[in-house]
Amino acid sequence: MAHLLSASCPVNISTCSKNSPNSLKKCLSSLPTSLTLQTSVRPFKSLPLNRRSAYKVLSVRATTLQQPTAKTGSGSDQTSGQDSRPTRVMVIGGDGYCGWATSLHLSNKNYEVAIVDNLVRRHFDHQLGLDSLTPISSIHDRIRRWRSITEKDINLYIGDVCDFEFLAEAFTSFKPDAVVHFGEQRSAPYSMIDRSRAVYTQQNNVLGTLNVLFAIKEFSEDCHLVKLGTMGEYGTPNIDIEEGYITITHNGRTDTLPYPKQASSFYHLSKVHDSNNIAFTCKAWGIRATDLNQGVVYGVRTAETEMHEELYNRFDYDGVFGTALNRFCVQAAVGHPLTVYGKGGQTRGYLDIRDTVQCVELAIANPANRGEFRVFNQFTEQFSVNQLASLVTKAGEKLGIEVQTISVPNPRVEAEEHYYNAKHTKLIELGLQPHLLSDSLLDSLLNVAVQFKDRVDTKQIMPSVSWRKIGVKPKTVSA
Amino acid sequence: MAHLLSASCPVNISTCSKNSPNSLKKCLSSLPTSLTLQTSVRPFKSLPLNRRSAYKVLSVRATTLQQPTAKTGSGSDQTSGQDSRPTRVMVIGGDGYCGWATSLHLSNKNYEVAIVDNLVRRHFDHQLGLDSLTPISSIHDRIRRWRSITEKDINLYIGDVCDFEFLAEAFTSFKPDAVVHFGEQRSAPYSMIDRSRAVYTQQNNVLGTLNVLFAIKEFSEDCHLVKLGTMGEYGTPNIDIEEGYITITHNGRTDTLPYPKQASSFYHLSKVHDSNNIAFTCKAWGIRATDLNQGVVYGVRTAETEMHEELYNRFDYDGVFGTALNRFCVQAAVGHPLTVYGKGGQTRGYLDIRDTVQCVELAIANPANRGEFRVFNQFTEQFSVNQLASLVTKAGEKLGIEVQTISVPNPRVEAEEHYYNAKHTKLIELGLQPHLLSDSLLDSLLNVAVQFKDRVDTKQIMPSVSWRKIGVKPKTVSA
Repeated sequence: MAHLLSASCPVNISTCSKNSPNSLKKCLSSLPTSLTLQTSVRPFKSLPLNRRSAYKVLSVRATTLQQPTAKTGSGSDQTSGQDSRPTRVMVIGGDGYCGWATSLHLSNKNYEVAIVDNLVRRHFDHQLGLDSLTPISSIHDRIRRWRSITEKDINLYIGDVCDFEFLAEAFTSFKPDAVVHFGEQRSAPYSMIDRSRAVYTQQNNVLGTLNVLFAIKEFSEDCHLVKLGTMGEYGTPNIDIEEGYITITHNGRTDTLPYPKQASSFYHLSKVHDSNNIAFTCKAWGIRATDLNQGVVYGVRTAETEMHEELYNRFDYDGVFGTALNRFCVQAAVGHPLTVYGKGGQTRGYLDIRDTVQCVELAIANPANRGEFRVFNQFTEQFSVNQLASLVTKAGEKLGIEVQTISVPNPRVEAEEHYYNAKHTKLIELGLQPHLLSDSLLDSLLNVAVQFKDRVDTKQIMPSVSWRKIGVKPKTVSA
Repeated sequence: MAHLLSASCPVNISTCSKNSPNSLKKCLSSLPTSLTLQTSVRPFKSLPLNRRSAYKVLSVRATTLQQPTAKTGSGSDQTSGQDSRPTRVMVIGGDGYCGWATSLHLSNKNYEVAIVDNLVRRHFDHQLGLDSLTPISSIHDRIRRWRSITEKDINLYIGDVCDFEFLAEAFTSFKPDAVVHFGEQRSAPYSMIDRSRAVYTQQNNVLGTLNVLFAIKEFSEDCHLVKLGTMGEYGTPNIDIEEGYITITHNGRTDTLPYPKQASSFYHLSKVHDSNNIAFTCKAWGIRATDLNQGVVYGVRTAETEMHEELYNRFDYDGVFGTALNRFCVQAAVGHPLTVYGKGGQTRGYLDIRDTVQCVELAIANPANRGEFRVFNQFTEQFSVNQLASLVTKAGEKLGIEVQTISVPNPRVEAEEHYYNAKHTKLIELGLQPHLLSDSLLDSLLNVAVQFKDRVDTKQIMPSVSWRKIGVKPKTVSA
């Protein structure tokens, strides 16, 4: 599996004392802006390194210069009532699309944030010849820019949660009150490229999550796990989809049981496996966990990522990592027909990335009880693919773009016309104020696509991965 | 993970031509009885070895000296109708408790059998300081003895199904019509020893099964997968347990969906993950699969293992690998009180190992359709732990053994009093003739335990693995 990072990538530059914020600030500001991992190691090469701190990078205590905001979900500790220190949130996968936006949002809300990431998502881009529509900075530059703008520090641990030694070090060092786990291979098409990617996806996602559960049990048993699942775990049953559980009366007896799952890719299946593993540990060990079954995320801008171009979020439009609405906007911007798979009746739940970050914060601010495995369906509206195509076509007209639609053979195995009615009230009850897909939002998303259209590689637009044709031969990608 | 075999264990001794049964017989009979892997390699050390045959050991075409029996399920090809060659069955995990008995049963029924096994089950015994109650021969001696008694050959591939290169070689060489997959870490307590065993169990079981699915798709797409699941996948819901699926009417709509699972160990969870993965590939690729959700197996003797002491099956009585009834019989034989966990109301499905082999044969002889994911609950009777203790106590009385029972703190997290009613009609409909747990059977099982009681290590009897106390520190075992 040459495409994998098989171990964590420790980077040793943190010899600054974490008990001395001032010296740290100096230390950080003295690092060159274009710092690379290689050059950063050099100045400290000859210093003795404690094994237990070998993985730590740019780890800085939050200075909490702003007061917590008044609303529920601020970073000040709402749950223990024992002290007023900020809630400490570890965001695994904090360099990714949802993870980065969430990390900034939580930091801005005065949570003390640590990003844990092995940066493998950037590695996938290199290997598959893909790139974000929006130019994105390195995680190091992102964090430094955030600090320079807000005076808020984000801790960074570079490494792989599948490497338990690394994860243990991150846990014992950061001592999280909550862990948000985005740190998984998150593309269904990626998991269907070839056997090695299928195996990698399940290995990485399932074993990484097992490690997180063990780390919580061992080092931080009161810690709240907020795990990103997907609405795709449910498939498309012919009955209403509930939030995690369903009450069944059968042969005169009644029980409330986990909602039956029918996932339809090795990626979606990995999330089902995770859900089952987490549910067990809640019961057996008293873990507190919230499973956020997220719909398809669209959009790219959040209040925080808009502050500076070095904070820009990634925007994937390719056939492997791009999500439906984002892809359509880019296709429209470059004059490519919208690629509807098959009949286009495939209906799913969608949400704006600004709601992703809001939902995660709501989950953290209102933690599950010890032993509770809580499931929220995290989306705000349902659309069919045909409805999305129609909305993008109309938005294009307003901008003077003529948008066409073509039906391409469906590379997936899925129902193209089906019943779909999924409940999503629990996050609303906690206070979610949805950003619905209004005309103005779609205009703005299309505008981002137009702004960066010169960066589009049109070869990446068509789907290249087939659910039925996946084989054992490793797929390599030519230029 | 020092306790793992991380790769396959290729052994290169088969330079005999597989197209020449006579020369092969000579070749095999010339090998010393006490052959070890090391010495077997030596004579051929200097010969050039084709990479693709590097894994093959003792691979011999079946000679099919006996005519197929008349009943359904004989080894002659019942399904294709195109030729009369024997159905070729690959038994993954064919050196284990159920796998060995099944391999012999199928061979005796004139199926052409290949055992695929990495022998890691024997390795676990070494590492944990355990041993079978019954003395068992090496897989090489077992197969040679079987051949000398019946003139039937069993092919043997020593290696790990998690190593796809090995598995591919076994598939393309043997060309199975059916694969029976027992090749998983099969102990719930083993999976709860420590983090590394939990991770190993899910990694080994889930990824090995993924590899088997890919091998079928790539090399043998009409091949029928017969996968061993467990009744433990269902947990103990407060409604009747159906066979794999349940029809649910909810808010005025109806669908038949996968039966909700509530597994209660990392081992049981791995089987749930497998089931979900297999169901997906049946839908997406047209794999034909039967998932046998097996109950707790008891007994040790089958018609074939009784033929010679070198064919004896293993009999585990320890707290890690021993199953409930087998453990009680050994405890009774050595005068140890029967160890009832907690209240003893835990009710499960049970079956005689003679029914295991019968069920597997019935599944093979009546294969699932292409694209069908068929689920059978494979057990014959339900008992609570207290009922089992009572039955063993009565059987002991007849043999003049005074049997006592103690309640020990339950090392597991499970309901100790609960509703349990699981359906198990589908295998009966296919012709299963159950061996129910009569007095005479229990007497005979107790007699086996008494026969070998001098081999019992009483230190292994008490449960040593706790579901709640599992930690990240590797558990080592002292002598």
